Amino acid sequence: MAPNMALWDEKEIFPVKTMRKAAELGFGGIYIRPDVGGSGLSRLDTSIIFEALSTGCVSTTAYMSIHNMCAWMIDTFGNDEQRHRFCPSLCTMEKFASYCLTEPGSGSDAASLLTSAKRDGDHYILNGTKAFISGGGDTDVYVVMCRTGGSGSRGISCLVVEKETPGLSFGKKEKKVGWNSQPTRAVIFEDCAVPVTNRLGEEGQGFGIAMRGLNGGRINIASCSLGAAHASVLLSRDHLAVRKQFGEPLANNQYLQFRLAEMATQLVTARLIVRHAAQALQEGHNDAATLCAMAKLYATDECFKVCNQALQMHGGYGYLKDYAVQQFVRDIRVHQILEGACYSGQ
Amino acid sequence: MAPNMALWDEKEIFPVKTMRKAAELGFGGIYIRPDVGGSGLSRLDTSIIFEALSTGCVSTTAYMSIHNMCAWMIDTFGNDEQRHRFCPSLCTMEKFASYCLTEPGSGSDAASLLTSAKRDGDHYILNGTKAFISGGGDTDVYVVMCRTGGSGSRGISCLVVEKETPGLSFGKKEKKVGWNSQPTRAVIFEDCAVPVTNRLGEEGQGFGIAMRGLNGGRINIASCSLGAAHASVLLSRDHLAVRKQFGEPLANNQYLQFRLAEMATQLVTARLIVRHAAQALQEGHNDAATLCAMAKLYATDECFKVCNQALQMHGGYGYLKDYAVQQFVRDIRVHQILEGACYSGQ
Amino acid sequence: MAPNMALWDEKEIFPVKTMRKAAELGFGGIYIRPDVGGSGLSRLDTSIIFEALSTGCVSTTAYMSIHNMCAWMIDTFGNDEQRHRFCPSLCTMEKFASYCLTEPGSGSDAASLLTSAKRDGDHYILNGTKAFISGGGDTDVYVVMCRTGGSGSRGISCLVVEKETPGLSFGKKEKKVGWNSQPTRAVIFEDCAVPVTNRLGEEGQGFGIAMRGLNGGRINIASCSLGAAHASVLLSRDHLAVRKQFGEPLANNQYLQFRLAEMATQLVTARLIVRHAAQALQEGHNDAATLCAMAKLYATDECFKVCNQALQMHGGYGYLKDYAVQQFVRDIRVHQILEGACYSGQ
Amino acid sequence: MAPNMALWDEKEIFPVKTMRKAAELGFGGIYIRPDVGGSGLSRLDTSIIFEALSTGCVSTTAYMSIHNMCAWMIDTFGNDEQRHRFCPSLCTMEKFASYCLTEPGSGSDAASLLTSAKRDGDHYILNGTKAFISGGGDTDVYVVMCRTGGSGSRGISCLVVEKETPGLSFGKKEKKVGWNSQPTRAVIFEDCAVPVTNRLGEEGQGFGIAMRGLNGGRINIASCSLGAAHASVLLSRDHLAVRKQFGEPLANNQYLQFRLAEMATQLVTARLIVRHAAQALQEGHNDAATLCAMAKLYATDECFKVCNQALQMHGGYGYLKDYAVQQFVRDIRVHQILEGACYSGQ
Repeated sequence: MAPNMALWDEKEIFPVKTMRKAAELGFGGIYIRPDVGGSGLSRLDTSIIFEALSTGCVSTTAYMSIHNMCAWMIDTFGNDEQRHRFCPSLCTMEKFASYCLTEPGSGSDAASLLTSAKRDGDHYILNGTKAFISGGGDTDVYVVMCRTGGSGSRGISCLVVEKETPGLSFGKKEKKVGWNSQPTRAVIFEDCAVPVTNRLGEEGQGFGIAMRGLNGGRINIASCSLGAAHASVLLSRDHLAVRKQFGEPLANNQYLQFRLAEMATQLVTARLIVRHAAQALQEGHNDAATLCAMAKLYATDECFKVCNQALQMHGGYGYLKDYAVQQFVRDIRVHQILEGACYSGQ
Repeated sequence: MAPNMALWDEKEIFPVKTMRKAAELGFGGIYIRPDVGGSGLSRLDTSIIFEALSTGCVSTTAYMSIHNMCAWMIDTFGNDEQRHRFCPSLCTMEKFASYCLTEPGSGSDAASLLTSAKRDGDHYILNGTKAFISGGGDTDVYVVMCRTGGSGSRGISCLVVEKETPGLSFGKKEKKVGWNSQPTRAVIFEDCAVPVTNRLGEEGQGFGIAMRGLNGGRINIASCSLGAAHASVLLSRDHLAVRKQFGEPLANNQYLQFRLAEMATQLVTARLIVRHAAQALQEGHNDAATLCAMAKLYATDECFKVCNQALQMHGGYGYLKDYAVQQFVRDIRVHQILEGACYSGQ
Repeated sequence: MAPNMALWDEKEIFPVKTMRKAAELGFGGIYIRPDVGGSGLSRLDTSIIFEALSTGCVSTTAYMSIHNMCAWMIDTFGNDEQRHRFCPSLCTMEKFASYCLTEPGSGSDAASLLTSAKRDGDHYILNGTKAFISGGGDTDVYVVMCRTGGSGSRGISCLVVEKETPGLSFGKKEKKVGWNSQPTRAVIFEDCAVPVTNRLGEEGQGFGIAMRGLNGGRINIASCSLGAAHASVLLSRDHLAVRKQFGEPLANNQYLQFRLAEMATQLVTARLIVRHAAQALQEGHNDAATLCAMAKLYATDECFKVCNQALQMHGGYGYLKDYAVQQFVRDIRVHQILEGACYSGQ
Repeated sequence: MAPNMALWDEKEIFPVKTMRKAAELGFGGIYIRPDVGGSGLSRLDTSIIFEALSTGCVSTTAYMSIHNMCAWMIDTFGNDEQRHRFCPSLCTMEKFASYCLTEPGSGSDAASLLTSAKRDGDHYILNGTKAFISGGGDTDVYVVMCRTGGSGSRGISCLVVEKETPGLSFGKKEKKVGWNSQPTRAVIFEDCAVPVTNRLGEEGQGFGIAMRGLNGGRINIASCSLGAAHASVLLSRDHLAVRKQFGEPLANNQYLQFRLAEMATQLVTARLIVRHAAQALQEGHNDAATLCAMAKLYATDECFKVCNQALQMHGGYGYLKDYAVQQFVRDIRVHQILEGACYSGQ
């Protein structure tokens, strides 16, 4: 991916072919069970894979991690018919998936969502809007949290909506600071009829399903931040070795050596907490959800600092789009915001 | 400017007409003496003006501040003939100026610069390349630091090179993270003959002239960061008042209130040190250069943190190009790098 | 003071004689009006004086600043009889004053205080306990916030209680991390009868009086932090010049140079905001109270960082009581806590 | 230990009996081989034990960790005669050990040390001074780095010096900010004759032995910081649950909740990197030394922040010696300084 990341960013290309090649290696359904085409790997394996891929392109890898999360939700909470209907084509990335939770008025505060799904025979009639949907408009399968019951988190269900469903439309493609290889659009439901057989789990289980998905999602996104930070540390090391000031390579400057050591320390500690949370999730520890949130918060913050400091170490070059470091900064900035970073603002 | 800042960014427009209108208000030569068309205002006035303008567009204001710095160098170190020849058309912004110090191999380490100017009768023959030149290619007057003598800072002189001079050419327009309303190009001299009458001050005074210019330049750039931070605090306050989460405006959230108070404190302290340095420079204090460097370092760092935190407070919206806050973040990021931020990396 | 600060700390001596000498120089009533013995200086003068004194001993100076605040409250809100009765002996520091707001259960949350003052003829009968009282037990005049009316801030009045009043007693002397040259005790009122003529202002004005006093108090305490930071920067500079590592003075180490420059910047910005707030308070600006709180919060935090970094620069020596830097750290640590730092915890 | 930590601090008691009881549990030679009385546990076990013990008293535990390091050096680099002569009484803590590297003029810059050991028959004659020696004067066995050869690290050897050796004396007991349950003194050698049979390893191997010891020492000290931070988080949680402000427990304050979550995250990441380094050291990884240094630097810094923030959350109470949190802050402050924290200053 690395040779293309700048181009995909500039031209805002959703690299479908490249992702399908990655799926051939098993990256379309990493932690999905093998009987529906998945690779059956662990959360820890998944974290390592996403870290490695994101050194090549954060934005594309981050989308793939969302795709995997959706496939996992179907694999885990779907019945056998649903699993076999949806998962195989997701695992090959013949089809692409999007996760539809956030609404324009509610940030990641899932319990207050307004998109309604009224039962009408063997269909639900959906009305409402989802915001900031990764892949929205270019993907095929939408895993949608919607309100089938009363207020609060217990009134929420989870439906799989297919792209060709009448009543489904999309907002304009958003212009973003980064994450440009994945399209972001609002997803709009207007009297959109979805078969009851597309519901994952029971009515009222949607909130739990969404949260369970996010546990893994947080580790995945954090892993993408790790990859960016890892790549940025290497780029900085190389840049300092090459560039000279006052007649010496910058690498001989003690202040910069300490900063680089600091960056390495931030990377290592971030990596340790992400791996630890992945393991806890895999093993079903009681504190897995807490650790996932902690790992996501810590790793996305620290890795942003690492990348931003790497940009600084590049001097004026760091500000030019010819140098990858600025794209890592732009791409991972959004990781601090999404998937429940209610701590920090939104 | 504010209504156009997003457009100028997206389309990479150098807003010549708007700047000429600003020049009608006296902003083309704010701290230039009135006999050559300047406004004759103080450094403190200048700081306040650039802070105010940059709330509308950081990138354009930052270019204007460089233009002012060049005009000031000619006004201060030029002889009367030079002052009357160059300053009036700079003050009206009929002509635009660029500051040419940095070279590809030397960062802001002025003393080691390589661009050579060999005396040949009543001309200097210039050879060399300047990098990261704001306005480069679109401007008319280049204030160039070059080597007329031996190594070290005492061998440097300052020449004014006009755009039409044979042997002057420009690199490709750089793609940048921000500062997109001002073009950045390399400026290339190949046997470029410049009249001796275009030299500011004596041979060997160039380094001193460059540094003197940068004292004000640092205050100006710091002031542009203040404007961005000020605007971002207001945008955040408004956003928090409007956006709801868990049924309440975000503005009621105590954590966010404290963060906003913190941002206001960062802004106020940054403003105080910039104003203090401006006053010291105006009054010619002994420690003016130190204070200018300190103010630049502190204000550009703190204001970046303010804008970046403001982006965070906007949640997903902060990442969209429809919202101004992300442009403030992108535009002022480079202020931490340029003009001698050798502390932090480059 | 400087030669004694370590001794006063170790032996927990309240240096009465030294403070009376300082009072001869006018430091017992710096911003008190001259007709009752004060020096009639401005808030800005006061800030500069307390900064200078605290380079010699933070703890003693901090107590003196509280004493001055109490004297100012009597001078400002007392009637002429009260002013002439109390202020002259406070200005000479023949008598010492304490400020009694905080209670064991309420932190600096003044509005919820419980100490009651019931009117009985021409006396108030006080019952309740005040906690963390600087000077408590060793001082003569207690400026006490107590509840004469209903709940909330409007039920609070301000009484001056003299030491010999029956029913007034004191808790044990607290052992503290620093501030050891001033005793800290609880102040206990048990059916303590205080003449109505000792009330400052009207009933119900006590909360406003307390808050007005704290505006200046915050600047004063912040100024004491500045003195500690200033002294610590100088101690560090001297230490780095003398100590060698790897055959060179530490002062030649670029990393430490940058840290020292950073400390200097923190000191300068902290000083600027304290001075700015002092000026605003003197001139009665609308935002004076906000600026005082901001200055207190910023300066006490940044100056602690400066002193703590100075300790670090001293290496193992910084941890020894023979070196002043550790006392600066211990003494100013409490400035971040007291007088309404509800932001940060308590 | 917990019930005594305040007393040991105030009275500066070296708790010999308590430590001997701990030794009965195997804590006098945790990672020493069993044939000489050690417990034969791993580095990871050791880290967990020191973390647990230091929740009761950091200062005492930190001394025990130094004692263990010395015993390990003898166990690892000593010959069998030496191992059996020294280790058993160290493992029972019948005898106590001190590590003598630092000198007054050289910080932790081992290679430049000046203490000389001149060979004279079957003895070395030692002259020189060691500074900041934990246990110095109260301990029995001194593991001393001294110069038997030329300049640089290759001229250094490691000798075991027993307390009763003529020519060995001690400086005054230092007054310190914390670590008061362990005495600190200079160790002075004046024509002090030490048998050649007390040399660990060969001549010239001393620097390597010292550094090998410090790898484990760094993990141990970092582990002591973890214990302090762990205890401080619990103390803060309890304090917030009990204290009220504005009519509600502080624990309901969202800002403080986030700060507490932040502290927990700092603790978890610090613990992960310490455990990771301990494992790497145990397994003899190539990057073990780097990881030990990184873990020490990160954990001692972050844990100090945690404890210092815990103090802040205690408000005025945090500043009183009746509350343990201030002692944790004082005790672990020195961990950021010692054992090669050349990064940060000394």
